Amino acid sequence: MTRELDLNCDMGESFGAYTIGEDAAMLELVTSANVACGFHAGDPVVMRKTIRMARDLGVHVGAHPSFADLYGFGRRRISGEKPEDLETQLIYQIVSMQGMCALENHPMTHVKTHGAIGNMAAADPDLAALCVRAVQAVDPTLTFITLPYSETYKAAEKAGLPVACEIYADRSYTDLGHLTPRSEPGAVIHDPEQSVTQVLEMVVNGHIPTTGGKRLPVEPDTLCVHGDTQGAVEICRALRNALEENGITISPFAQSAQEATGA
Amino acid sequence: MTRELDLNCDMGESFGAYTIGEDAAMLELVTSANVACGFHAGDPVVMRKTIRMARDLGVHVGAHPSFADLYGFGRRRISGEKPEDLETQLIYQIVSMQGMCALENHPMTHVKTHGAIGNMAAADPDLAALCVRAVQAVDPTLTFITLPYSETYKAAEKAGLPVACEIYADRSYTDLGHLTPRSEPGAVIHDPEQSVTQVLEMVVNGHIPTTGGKRLPVEPDTLCVHGDTQGAVEICRALRNALEENGITISPFAQSAQEATGA
Amino acid sequence: MTRELDLNCDMGESFGAYTIGEDAAMLELVTSANVACGFHAGDPVVMRKTIRMARDLGVHVGAHPSFADLYGFGRRRISGEKPEDLETQLIYQIVSMQGMCALENHPMTHVKTHGAIGNMAAADPDLAALCVRAVQAVDPTLTFITLPYSETYKAAEKAGLPVACEIYADRSYTDLGHLTPRSEPGAVIHDPEQSVTQVLEMVVNGHIPTTGGKRLPVEPDTLCVHGDTQGAVEICRALRNALEENGITISPFAQSAQEATGA
Amino acid sequence: MTRELDLNCDMGESFGAYTIGEDAAMLELVTSANVACGFHAGDPVVMRKTIRMARDLGVHVGAHPSFADLYGFGRRRISGEKPEDLETQLIYQIVSMQGMCALENHPMTHVKTHGAIGNMAAADPDLAALCVRAVQAVDPTLTFITLPYSETYKAAEKAGLPVACEIYADRSYTDLGHLTPRSEPGAVIHDPEQSVTQVLEMVVNGHIPTTGGKRLPVEPDTLCVHGDTQGAVEICRALRNALEENGITISPFAQSAQEATGA
Repeated sequence: MTRELDLNCDMGESFGAYTIGEDAAMLELVTSANVACGFHAGDPVVMRKTIRMARDLGVHVGAHPSFADLYGFGRRRISGEKPEDLETQLIYQIVSMQGMCALENHPMTHVKTHGAIGNMAAADPDLAALCVRAVQAVDPTLTFITLPYSETYKAAEKAGLPVACEIYADRSYTDLGHLTPRSEPGAVIHDPEQSVTQVLEMVVNGHIPTTGGKRLPVEPDTLCVHGDTQGAVEICRALRNALEENGITISPFAQSAQEATGA
Repeated sequence: MTRELDLNCDMGESFGAYTIGEDAAMLELVTSANVACGFHAGDPVVMRKTIRMARDLGVHVGAHPSFADLYGFGRRRISGEKPEDLETQLIYQIVSMQGMCALENHPMTHVKTHGAIGNMAAADPDLAALCVRAVQAVDPTLTFITLPYSETYKAAEKAGLPVACEIYADRSYTDLGHLTPRSEPGAVIHDPEQSVTQVLEMVVNGHIPTTGGKRLPVEPDTLCVHGDTQGAVEICRALRNALEENGITISPFAQSAQEATGA
Repeated sequence: MTRELDLNCDMGESFGAYTIGEDAAMLELVTSANVACGFHAGDPVVMRKTIRMARDLGVHVGAHPSFADLYGFGRRRISGEKPEDLETQLIYQIVSMQGMCALENHPMTHVKTHGAIGNMAAADPDLAALCVRAVQAVDPTLTFITLPYSETYKAAEKAGLPVACEIYADRSYTDLGHLTPRSEPGAVIHDPEQSVTQVLEMVVNGHIPTTGGKRLPVEPDTLCVHGDTQGAVEICRALRNALEENGITISPFAQSAQEATGA
Repeated sequence: MTRELDLNCDMGESFGAYTIGEDAAMLELVTSANVACGFHAGDPVVMRKTIRMARDLGVHVGAHPSFADLYGFGRRRISGEKPEDLETQLIYQIVSMQGMCALENHPMTHVKTHGAIGNMAAADPDLAALCVRAVQAVDPTLTFITLPYSETYKAAEKAGLPVACEIYADRSYTDLGHLTPRSEPGAVIHDPEQSVTQVLEMVVNGHIPTTGGKRLPVEPDTLCVHGDTQGAVEICRALRNALEENGITISPFAQSAQEATGA
């Protein structure tokens, strides 16, 4: 048995004199990079450098748009803007990233929303539809990375936008197929072995194991790994090795419409 | 005798809740709009709205990149950055504007540098070459609007970048063909009639009249008009009417390599 | 019969090259100025100039702190920050304004929260208590301007923070004593005469007339007037004149603990 | 023989989600902390935390004002602003820091300008006088940390502002008593032993050894140490130990007018 899995990681989040994340090392391990677009993090110099590094390593790149919120790193939940203004902000970020990728001869493949807007859209059909519209306005062949059983997943499917179904190794899932909120006990899986087991269960057997003991169908395309936590590189390397030893091939997701079974 | 002249105006400089300039009214009068790219002014919503308005009126649009300096509105002189970083900042702005224009089906035609970076580059061969490289990196067929007898003009010509030679109606010129610095007496021409006479002299007779009494050859493509001063719209309308009455056709400059005689 | 009423207005909201509001003209009409602290608007130059103008006209000045959100002008609703961080942000703004006022020999008298944080705190006991703590941490003798029947009013009273009860001339009130949301019909009172009548009813008779026909007790200290809308100066002048003709003395509210009956 | 020397370090330069420097560790080693004021780095939360940590360790705190330039971390050279506006920006930063220190019961002792504005003022009499005026406007008893033989030193002395004469262990000096520009060979002293020797020569013998072989009189009050470079904490600890072993007492400079012989 062979199954393929993409590893995606948020990157390019340094800003001016400030550095976050070990991008160079992570790019050796992942197959897709979600690059900050200057709204929660990143700047033109960082963005360009990240795209070049990814290109030279054959790592796929995507836009990682956010609320306009450098101070809050895109983690503050923001509401009260006109929806069309927020949509234009997302479009701008995707367009800018796409243009910088074209400049560097490394075409952009995907979009993944960052932080608070991602979390809010996953639970809000209107915001989810807004995000999907923003991606499609720029390029309807881009793949949208998002969580199974989320409003964003449903919105993308409904709109015919290609989706990459994203799973987590270090987060548990509720019976609804959602990530257990971090405020609840058991939300984070600290045991590396358990992380690997969960991923294999999802990738090989096609099931999300939930905290309530359910098994929800899922067809994962990409696994989210973190580049900005203590020991991130080592954790990612170990995880990648364990998956490969278990017969998983790590490679970028296909850049075409996905048949989704996750939601 | 018929001569053609483009009227260009800086626009899209509003930001969030802040409004600057009477863009809608100016767009009825000019033939080229230089749109702020979010670094000294502007934001995605303003940028998109400006492009749409220009498109609907058949006004050409270009990028108006700047130093990264919202607080100083791009008017503070900034140095000490790595040249390659500054170049990437300019590229990013041009790429983003180009992408937003493509999205709105109104292809971008030109680039004009804003404020302090424009003034500094006009006098600094290295910075001038950097600006020209930034434009060419994005698209070598874009036209670069700049002043005759400037380092930017020379750098663009040398690099084979199409140039639109820009003149001013309300500024006097030194014997070197430069704008008289605002700090000196006689820098600004307040008399509308004198402004018209100066423009006609430049456009019809092909000469820049200088404060020292010289007549320097020039072949103007575009006249810079201001949209953010008291009575800007009225001044521009009167100027345009006077020029048309004197046989000047107001139309966008051709979007192809210009034969320049200005420098 | 003579009753006193303060007129307060948000000011100092210009930023860099951007101008909002007719501060100089409004300062001739009002008795208290709420000055932006650089987080949603304003900058050091604007802040200092505003304080000086207010001082020279004998207008009281206060801090007008906000969420950190220049792009959104403090009008975007923001959540998800650590409460202690938000509290420190408010403290910083009040401290900075207090220091600039001291520098200009015009001691700060009050604090009024701006935009989204003000609206959110009025309805959220925890956020209301946070705002009150921030004011008290800087100076417990400062007066807090807030709405009757709001959580902020209750929190200030409970904490022993002096309160100035704020009313509106151009907004209707619900039966709970809250401003009718702008999304609902009848929220804004456009008729100047009706505005004057409503203020007199509140100031002279001590009642808030509600949309449901109730009369809620109130003891107003200050009336909020707007400086950034079309015709703001004229509207404010007419309102002030009408109030004075009806026996209301326009003067700053006393800077000491208020006996409140409004909530 | 006993001589006293203060160790000062720039701190509080983290911003939002971004961390720079090992402030907690450096505060164990230094006697004065120069805290960023939000213009080149820092934010209210970082500022408050830094002040508290310094207070708890008995480390003196000062303001570290900068050009308004978060993107450039205050390292870009900026000109073209109205001098009075720049002065107000500095005043604002010093006032805000002073207020936050007062709030935390740890009175501010000093001011040191950051990065580009510090470098530019050291060589520009007008800018030096502007910086000195800004400090005096807030509190004329504050001590101004600056380099011997600089324009800022002269301006402070002339204005009667207390000065702390600052030396470097890891930088060589020109015959004019200035730091050798980093662009020149030999600008940075990499040998720890040579660094200690230079400091002892300056502190014990009262001479600056110059690259041209001169010995310029100096009476140092404080030594600048770096907290944001690779191995900064170890380097500082070793330097402090070596100085103490050589009879130097490390303690905060007296907070009163200094008798200067350095310029």
